[in-house]
Amino acid sequence: MKRAPFITFEGGEGTGKSTQIRRLQEALLIQQIQVETFREPGGTTGAEAIRKLLVEGDPDRWDGMTEALLMYAARRDLTQKRIIPTLAKGIWGLCDRFFDSTMAYQGFGHELGYETVRELNHAVMGDFVPDLTFVFNLGSGIGLQRAANRGGIEDRFERKGLTFHERVDEGYAEIVKRNPERCVVIDAFQDIHQVFYDIAQVIEKRFGVKIPC
Amino acid sequence: MKRAPFITFEGGEGTGKSTQIRRLQEALLIQQIQVETFREPGGTTGAEAIRKLLVEGDPDRWDGMTEALLMYAARRDLTQKRIIPTLAKGIWGLCDRFFDSTMAYQGFGHELGYETVRELNHAVMGDFVPDLTFVFNLGSGIGLQRAANRGGIEDRFERKGLTFHERVDEGYAEIVKRNPERCVVIDAFQDIHQVFYDIAQVIEKRFGVKIPC
Repeated sequence: MKRAPFITFEGGEGTGKSTQIRRLQEALLIQQIQVETFREPGGTTGAEAIRKLLVEGDPDRWDGMTEALLMYAARRDLTQKRIIPTLAKGIWGLCDRFFDSTMAYQGFGHELGYETVRELNHAVMGDFVPDLTFVFNLGSGIGLQRAANRGGIEDRFERKGLTFHERVDEGYAEIVKRNPERCVVIDAFQDIHQVFYDIAQVIEKRFGVKIPC
Repeated sequence: MKRAPFITFEGGEGTGKSTQIRRLQEALLIQQIQVETFREPGGTTGAEAIRKLLVEGDPDRWDGMTEALLMYAARRDLTQKRIIPTLAKGIWGLCDRFFDSTMAYQGFGHELGYETVRELNHAVMGDFVPDLTFVFNLGSGIGLQRAANRGGIEDRFERKGLTFHERVDEGYAEIVKRNPERCVVIDAFQDIHQVFYDIAQVIEKRFGVKIPC
C-alpha cells in the first residue's frame, strides 16, 4: 500500500492554521478518508516533555541552536512513533508545523543560517519530506496581535519581538522559493471560508479528493 | 590571551574517569593553575533538565537519534554558557564525556553511523574541538560490573546490554584511529596511581605543566 499523504501547515503566529486543520480533518472524515492530526512540538510522551522545556520560561533560556536541537528531538520522536506508522496504515496526516518551522524560526529568526539547519535536517530526517505544505502568509504585526489576544502561558516564541518575526517571514519566503513543488502559499488575510476554499482546491488537484466547501 | 586547554575524558562506564578528573583538578590547583570541571550531560540549568529526560526511565524511551539530539542540546547549552567563557578567561576545562561519547554511544552503540553523527556534530559545534582527549580503555564486562556496583537510579545507559557496549568500544577505537593527535588511550586496567602517572606524563608533554604524582 502506498503511504498516505502527509500535509504540513506552516506560517507565523495567529495565521489560522489550527482552524483550517480542524476543518480539513472534518471534511476528509465526511469523505470517508481516515485522517490524524499532529501538532509540533509534542504528540508523544517524550515530545510533550521536550515541548515543556521549549515553550515555557525566559525567551533567552536557549540559544537558537539549542532550540533547534530540542525541536528536532521532539520531531524525531513524533515522526518515528506516530507519523510514519500512521501514514503506513493509509491514514492521512495533517501536521501543525513541521521542519520548515525550524528553518524559519531558528534558521532565519535566530540567524543560524540556511545551510546549518539544512545539514541538521538531513542528519535527523534523511529523505522524509511532507507531500504538501501550506504556508500561511500574513504580515507579522497582525498575526502577533491575534496570538496575543489568545493569551496563555505558552508565549515564549511570541515575546521575541517584531524584527525576529520579520526574519521568520523572510525564512518562509525562502523556503517557498526553494521548494516550489511542495509549498503552496495561502493568503491568510482572506476570511476563513475563502481560506478553506483555497485549501480544498489544492487538495483536489494534488490528491484527487473532492472537498465540499 | 590564548584560550586555556580543554581536556575531555572518554570511555565506557566505570572506567575511573571521574576519579582521575578529580585528581588532575587537585594537582593543577596545587600548581596555581585555575581549573574548572564539567560533566556531560548537564552543568547548566537547561542541560540538567535535559539530563533528567535522558538518564531516567525505560532504556527504549528514545531512539538513538533522539538521544543524540538531546545530548547535543545539553552540550550546546553547556558549551556556550560555561565552557567557552571559562576557557576564554584562561581557566583550564576538564570535561567528563564530550562529543566523542555521542559518536561512540549513539553513532556506534545505536548504529546511527559515523557520517550521520559527524554531520550533526558539524552543524552544532562548528570547529570547536577539545585540545586533548583521554580515552579510558577497559573491556566492557568489567566496567559495567563496576558501574552496577555503584548503583543509583541513573542507570538507563548501563541497562542497554553487552553487545551494545561492545559496539561502543568499537566506536572509541574508531575515534582514536581518526584523531591520533587529539586522543591518547589510557590503560584503565592499571591501578589508579599508575593511571594518574600516565595522565600526568601526557599533560607535561602537551602543555609543559609538571604534575607531582
